[in-house]
Amino acid sequence: MTATPTTLSPNGIPSNPPTTAPHWPRGFSSGGIAAGIKKPGVNDLALLFGSGEFGNGEFGNGELSAAAVFTRNLIVAAPIQVSRANLAVSSARIRALIINSGCANAATGEEGLARSRRTIESLAATLGIPSQSVLVNSTGVIGVQLPIARIEKALPALKASLQPGSCETFARSIMTTDTRPKWASRIIRWMEGTTERTCTVTGVAKGAGMIHPNMATMISVIVTDATLTPSELDGHLRSAVEKSFHRISVDGDTSTNDSVFALSSNCAGIVPPNQLALAFEAVAQELALMVVRDGEGFERGLEVRVHGGRTQSDALQVARTVAMSLLVRTAVTGGDPNWGRILAAAGRAGVELNPSTLRVSAGGIALFAAGEPTNADPVAVRRAFTADTVRIELDLAMGVASDVFWSCGLTKRYVEINADYTT
Amino acid sequence: MTATPTTLSPNGIPSNPPTTAPHWPRGFSSGGIAAGIKKPGVNDLALLFGSGEFGNGEFGNGELSAAAVFTRNLIVAAPIQVSRANLAVSSARIRALIINSGCANAATGEEGLARSRRTIESLAATLGIPSQSVLVNSTGVIGVQLPIARIEKALPALKASLQPGSCETFARSIMTTDTRPKWASRIIRWMEGTTERTCTVTGVAKGAGMIHPNMATMISVIVTDATLTPSELDGHLRSAVEKSFHRISVDGDTSTNDSVFALSSNCAGIVPPNQLALAFEAVAQELALMVVRDGEGFERGLEVRVHGGRTQSDALQVARTVAMSLLVRTAVTGGDPNWGRILAAAGRAGVELNPSTLRVSAGGIALFAAGEPTNADPVAVRRAFTADTVRIELDLAMGVASDVFWSCGLTKRYVEINADYTT
Repeated sequence: MTATPTTLSPNGIPSNPPTTAPHWPRGFSSGGIAAGIKKPGVNDLALLFGSGEFGNGEFGNGELSAAAVFTRNLIVAAPIQVSRANLAVSSARIRALIINSGCANAATGEEGLARSRRTIESLAATLGIPSQSVLVNSTGVIGVQLPIARIEKALPALKASLQPGSCETFARSIMTTDTRPKWASRIIRWMEGTTERTCTVTGVAKGAGMIHPNMATMISVIVTDATLTPSELDGHLRSAVEKSFHRISVDGDTSTNDSVFALSSNCAGIVPPNQLALAFEAVAQELALMVVRDGEGFERGLEVRVHGGRTQSDALQVARTVAMSLLVRTAVTGGDPNWGRILAAAGRAGVELNPSTLRVSAGGIALFAAGEPTNADPVAVRRAFTADTVRIELDLAMGVASDVFWSCGLTKRYVEINADYTT
Repeated sequence: MTATPTTLSPNGIPSNPPTTAPHWPRGFSSGGIAAGIKKPGVNDLALLFGSGEFGNGEFGNGELSAAAVFTRNLIVAAPIQVSRANLAVSSARIRALIINSGCANAATGEEGLARSRRTIESLAATLGIPSQSVLVNSTGVIGVQLPIARIEKALPALKASLQPGSCETFARSIMTTDTRPKWASRIIRWMEGTTERTCTVTGVAKGAGMIHPNMATMISVIVTDATLTPSELDGHLRSAVEKSFHRISVDGDTSTNDSVFALSSNCAGIVPPNQLALAFEAVAQELALMVVRDGEGFERGLEVRVHGGRTQSDALQVARTVAMSLLVRTAVTGGDPNWGRILAAAGRAGVELNPSTLRVSAGGIALFAAGEPTNADPVAVRRAFTADTVRIELDLAMGVASDVFWSCGLTKRYVEINADYTT
């Protein structure tokens, strides 16, 4: 079994997800069913399981190395608390990850915690594994108790749905207001003596629909068959998340359930670490941009690259402030080359700037330099601001640090979706 | 000459500005004319002048104590740089403040600085005062040079327009996209022996229209006839600004020209400092809320009060984060009692929180307490979220610090105004 590779665009980031779902790496099987948490017949329960099948006739014990980056929000949903505890108790060696959509089990007090614990205990009993080897997350309405009876009733069918191969059912079962499932995959090939070895990194995500019912969640799961200790896996995950999910914003809010999980089945052997790091980063970045592009009311992308920062944190701070400025984001929606707003956002980023050396450009065309507007060709400038993604660059000319942040135009449809929804 | 007091609403903050403009305090005259910076016939040049007339037959030298709070943006417009220098050179003893609308003179390089300097030199010559005793600001399009010839040609007419009394012409001449002029006033009365003394604090503001042409500016001028050293005046101004203009947000962006000036004519004698502080705070707060309520696409106000903060900075940080959250602001527009979004915004404020003791209420009705949603009456809750101003309170139960932040619902009209404008 090998994964279906996606075609790389020049910057590694396709605008739309590949239409054919890639395969999970070796050692994983997954399933998804409709448990009646959402409306009848819609998949709302997903399971990823360490199958122990190496795909080459060999079998392992199905143990998975695990790592996770959880929401920075201090209001943390019950399943996150339960998963965090299990990661510690199991020394990050787990067997299964269960995710339900339709109910976030957040702001549900002690009863919510009890129901998340019962989810993992019942699943563990169904699968015949220790309950400490199960991770759990939930996404959907907050402030409503998890329908635990429906979940428990559905667990045998969930187990029966497990199979290796395509990640499609899993990706679809964790969707909330997403308009399309999100997946990405990379295959790494290298030679060991005269033998070609391969390893796969495949990820799925559900994104940034924060509307229905009260708030949803960003959840991503990135898995590989590379052989990694939990600590090595954690390093790859954190490095990739820092360059992807921590560099995007749709509305500046983080949810109570946001999480990115990483799992490795350890059946592909030791993979060249640099190649693995690049694959993790590419998969995470592709998923993160899919989340932005499927954000509520999305019309046009915004990429802000900052060069010449005195420090990394300066460069990030300017990139983030410009990318999140409401005035810049409305200008992007309008296709309006309003460099004054970019300048003003950079100026309030809390970073030392020298307006007389600062350069601002869009789509490669200089707009502001040497303290004054340039005389850029208005037609070319307009073209840069009506592109599918507006690419803004700022050169701070203060040092050599650079960073990038992705966002999107703020649209009337975004306001409509979020204002017209009634609890 | 006495000022027209405004009627105080219970919290000191009327929803709309009084229809009759108050008077400037004694010792000031003002004027405003159309100089052709904006379209013909529209006032765009305003002058406030220390007349030296005490209004009781006595005359002073017209010298004014001055103070100013300027934009925190590092991209600072030319007039701000020139005014900052003059405040230093004159030891904050000035005679005149000139403000033009229609052109911000920002991002205009050395030539822009030269034109702001020429504005104050020409005005000084026209009025027969030292150029170091003039302050200047500009508001309007950025990246365009100031039409200095038109301004110079208009200065004799501007001088001729000077008169004591109503602040209306001045307030109207500094407007950009404001739909109405903004003013506020308080009269302080106290007894000295058997004599009743009075002092007036009157302010005007222009607000948060950031649309036309590239970006506008928040400018406010608050003046009094109280006798104050520049340093005492500065103290009153900073304290008032901290509780008003630094507690509001329409779109999170600060402009290159934002400024609040304070001037005192020193002809009312020493005023009880507590009363003066309260009057400054009330005037500044009233003006700041008028700016929010005249913000682009305004439909419904949002007030976020935080109690029980461990520190003042914690309380402010939570109030600001909730008040500026796009998801909370769209819920306010939709009249949607979406306490989950309030909770999530508080949770990402970067402040230590205990979800099990945190209380959230709206319009006095508890929505979330003891880690769980309350069973509040849905009709009453809906009423709180469809009020003219949605009043959210959070009790962090971590200490005794409190703070407040004002914003407004994010509307489709806001996006439309800012997206559909073409540079």
